[in-house]
Amino acid sequence: MTVFSAESGHEQVVFCHDKPTGLRAIIALYSTALGPGLGGTRFYPYASEADAVHDALELSRSMAYKNALAGLDHGGGKGVIWGDPDKDKTEPLLRAYGRFVQSLGGRYYTACDVGTYVQDMDVVSRETRFVTGRSEVNGGAGDSSVLTAYGVYQGMRAAAEHRWGTTSLRGRAVGVAGLGKVGKHLTRHLLDDGATVVATDVSERALEWARTHHPEVTLVADAEALIREPIDVYAPCALGGALDDDTVPALRAAVVAGAANNQLAHPGVEKLLAERGVLYVPDYVVNSGGVIQVADEIHGFNFERAKLRASGIFETTRQILRLADAEGVPPAVAADRLAERRMADVGRLRSILLP
Amino acid sequence: MTVFSAESGHEQVVFCHDKPTGLRAIIALYSTALGPGLGGTRFYPYASEADAVHDALELSRSMAYKNALAGLDHGGGKGVIWGDPDKDKTEPLLRAYGRFVQSLGGRYYTACDVGTYVQDMDVVSRETRFVTGRSEVNGGAGDSSVLTAYGVYQGMRAAAEHRWGTTSLRGRAVGVAGLGKVGKHLTRHLLDDGATVVATDVSERALEWARTHHPEVTLVADAEALIREPIDVYAPCALGGALDDDTVPALRAAVVAGAANNQLAHPGVEKLLAERGVLYVPDYVVNSGGVIQVADEIHGFNFERAKLRASGIFETTRQILRLADAEGVPPAVAADRLAERRMADVGRLRSILLP
Repeated sequence: MTVFSAESGHEQVVFCHDKPTGLRAIIALYSTALGPGLGGTRFYPYASEADAVHDALELSRSMAYKNALAGLDHGGGKGVIWGDPDKDKTEPLLRAYGRFVQSLGGRYYTACDVGTYVQDMDVVSRETRFVTGRSEVNGGAGDSSVLTAYGVYQGMRAAAEHRWGTTSLRGRAVGVAGLGKVGKHLTRHLLDDGATVVATDVSERALEWARTHHPEVTLVADAEALIREPIDVYAPCALGGALDDDTVPALRAAVVAGAANNQLAHPGVEKLLAERGVLYVPDYVVNSGGVIQVADEIHGFNFERAKLRASGIFETTRQILRLADAEGVPPAVAADRLAERRMADVGRLRSILLP
Repeated sequence: MTVFSAESGHEQVVFCHDKPTGLRAIIALYSTALGPGLGGTRFYPYASEADAVHDALELSRSMAYKNALAGLDHGGGKGVIWGDPDKDKTEPLLRAYGRFVQSLGGRYYTACDVGTYVQDMDVVSRETRFVTGRSEVNGGAGDSSVLTAYGVYQGMRAAAEHRWGTTSLRGRAVGVAGLGKVGKHLTRHLLDDGATVVATDVSERALEWARTHHPEVTLVADAEALIREPIDVYAPCALGGALDDDTVPALRAAVVAGAANNQLAHPGVEKLLAERGVLYVPDYVVNSGGVIQVADEIHGFNFERAKLRASGIFETTRQILRLADAEGVPPAVAADRLAERRMADVGRLRSILLP
């Protein structure tokens, strides 16, 4: 993996090393055309430096597109810390990381991701002001699953309108794979809207939650069983890679819209979905509620303002699905085009010199 | 080549990419313990990204040691631009590079190196204030060969004292390999001091200069011939790698002190020199006059102040040679220890919080 490959096109990739604390971090900025890069920090025991670089490049690129479509004044950025969070995460290491984030002078804002939590961002914030996703007692917005689920629900409504001519999910069967925090909130929105929910989770505790609070939810053994249910909408809300060469042919849903990141196991699956007539709303279009929340926190968190912006996911999804039809491409391609258009059109405005 | 290897220990390595201008640059900061990294930008058509990374890491490490021993408040940094300066060097590319230098907020100061010139730094300075080595009309210090040669001469004097008990080079035969700008100035210092000079250069123009201005200089065919001359001091002032497994055994000089960078062709040559009883003063100890000059320029260039600091190369060399004797190690090892000591001792002072 090289940084300067023709495909990557990242603006800046910063390797940060602090021997005494053992910090080895890579901060990748895909583009700052729309504003400072914004994206979480993943703390993960990669097998190699090349793997860590690869992940930083991929994730920061995704954030660029997600942030652009979320209408944020943020470019795409992502940090990865190469290490085992259970063993290597210490106050000095997190603070050393914070100093490196600060050294970029605000070109990158960090937040939580796999392996990092609001408490960690509180520690990072003791060395840099360019951090968001802190705990509520420290001025942070707190749990972002509320707005993430809300955004997914908005995207799903737009997809329903596109497919069935009505934004309501009343009477539709929705399969929710993963009853984590986002899956739970999403389930509530769907039930409130009059949909029926079929769900699954690997955790017995999550299933217990459903049995106790929502006995009307049908529980099935696993995701494999879920996709074979007679559902109208499939909402992957757990790990990535839910859509692959095995699951897509078995899928009975007409619409896919969920919160999980990287739902397509590999490039080309979006074509498979299109061929089967499945309307797939790209994950990064509908799951941007979380980043909308942490972006709002930078200006002093206001839940209503953030929720209003997350409501915009409905209109953005609508626009993408129309563009996909108009240009005869899958929604994933249309979404990329829309994101690239915004990066170019809004980014260009800096050429107008301000006094 | 990986960035996070155990050997490297660099603090920060920044990949900068600007597709429209074709800029692909790597800025490596070895350490900022003593202050902002300072080192030139090399513009070179590397065969691969790995080669470019390797060069950036090596050069920035060297600059850390050079700057530490020069007594500067600067850590080690270096930039490399991957490209062919003859074909790829444009105003937009240099200015894009300048913006990336500016993006580091002063943690790195750039200057000239192989493939970049004062005129290029003038262009870079239109995007960043963290650049030195500009042209005189733009507030720069101009040609740094004067102080580089002066510093080499000071280091040579200290070596002479160590070897022969007198700082004067009167009556000594000095072999100057390379009559570029630095070699010419050095030749003048040596002749003024009463030394005899034997010299060589690949350029007929340089030889003509010697014949015209200093007919007392003996000219020989090439460096191979030069080292076989009955010289007391050998001063490599051209390309790197002058000292290798072939040249060291043939060397007749008792002292080596010159301006060329990376005189040792590979690690281990310093031991070979020690075994043959040759007193080798490490290149980066004596050739720091140039970086002393550009460091001074940052504060508004004052030639006398910069010259005074370059005079310090005499005392530093003396200290290194004594330390080498005291600790029973080659001067190169002693120099590294002294540099590391200063980085640790002065760097530690930041732990004293200032109001």
